[in-house]
Amino acid sequence: MKFDLDRGLELLDRTPGTLESLTSGLSPEWLAADEGPDTWNPWEVIAHLTDLEGTDWLVRVKIILEHGRGRPFDPIHRTAFRTKFQGRSVESLLEEFASLRKDNLETLRGLDLGPDQLALHGAHPTLGDVVLSELLAAWVVHDLNHIAQIVRVMATQYDAAVGSWKEVLPLLHR
Amino acid sequence: MKFDLDRGLELLDRTPGTLESLTSGLSPEWLAADEGPDTWNPWEVIAHLTDLEGTDWLVRVKIILEHGRGRPFDPIHRTAFRTKFQGRSVESLLEEFASLRKDNLETLRGLDLGPDQLALHGAHPTLGDVVLSELLAAWVVHDLNHIAQIVRVMATQYDAAVGSWKEVLPLLHR
Repeated sequence: MKFDLDRGLELLDRTPGTLESLTSGLSPEWLAADEGPDTWNPWEVIAHLTDLEGTDWLVRVKIILEHGRGRPFDPIHRTAFRTKFQGRSVESLLEEFASLRKDNLETLRGLDLGPDQLALHGAHPTLGDVVLSELLAAWVVHDLNHIAQIVRVMATQYDAAVGSWKEVLPLLHR
Repeated sequence: MKFDLDRGLELLDRTPGTLESLTSGLSPEWLAADEGPDTWNPWEVIAHLTDLEGTDWLVRVKIILEHGRGRPFDPIHRTAFRTKFQGRSVESLLEEFASLRKDNLETLRGLDLGPDQLALHGAHPTLGDVVLSELLAAWVVHDLNHIAQIVRVMATQYDAAVGSWKEVLPLLHR
């Protein structure tokens, strides 16, 4: 599928609701469950998404529009959320994420990006030359990637509990 | 994590809301998108879940409680949804799924299953000897499995659109 701004916005709009439905009010057993050393639990995934929503995606859109390839994006600090959001409840993070996402999508819609702008190039600090439409598609897939991660992390907790059903549940084989 | 009925119910309760947030009102481009021949699109996944919600999980709980290993479960017809739900909108399926799930969980809570019942055995037509707690854990993971599938199917549509971001988006490498 070619990137289309309206189709992409459909998914970006949904992420706060999906995350809330998946995790708001969940017991600590689920929110603190991970897949082993150096893996994230659902709280950490949501904290990471909330952090990036304030510092990354839309900021990079604006850098491309204003500077093109002339000003590389700042690198992401993937674990900055640890100090930034220490002690915060998942519900409080979900609220902050939803509010930031709403503002960001209002701004994005207000930019009224056309084909010429979507084709503008920018400079990613590690990936190199990138295109604005790729940045927006990556924003969508980054959301989906982390939704799938939360879902997989929770499923993994029942890896043994499902007994021989494991055979027919492909999510437990990833 | 050992299976615990209250923890499992937390997730079973959430699935209708999560599916609705992910797919209600989505444009046909997303709802009809799949991963190639013999793969399912989001509409098909939701139709399958709705079908099984009426015919499978709770029915099997009752078979174990009433007959134990003496009466094997009926096999699942994984694609019965095609004729059963032909022409139905995803919103109409989501409504039916939510209503069936609500009734099923009310019934399940009403059964007030204790440790002795959760340890009862049943006979799966292909997997063989199974335990009631395994059936309930598999119900939870089956939900998560299909939520993850919808999310992955949508992400896959942007496999090329994300450009070099693909490298850092593991969901596109599954």
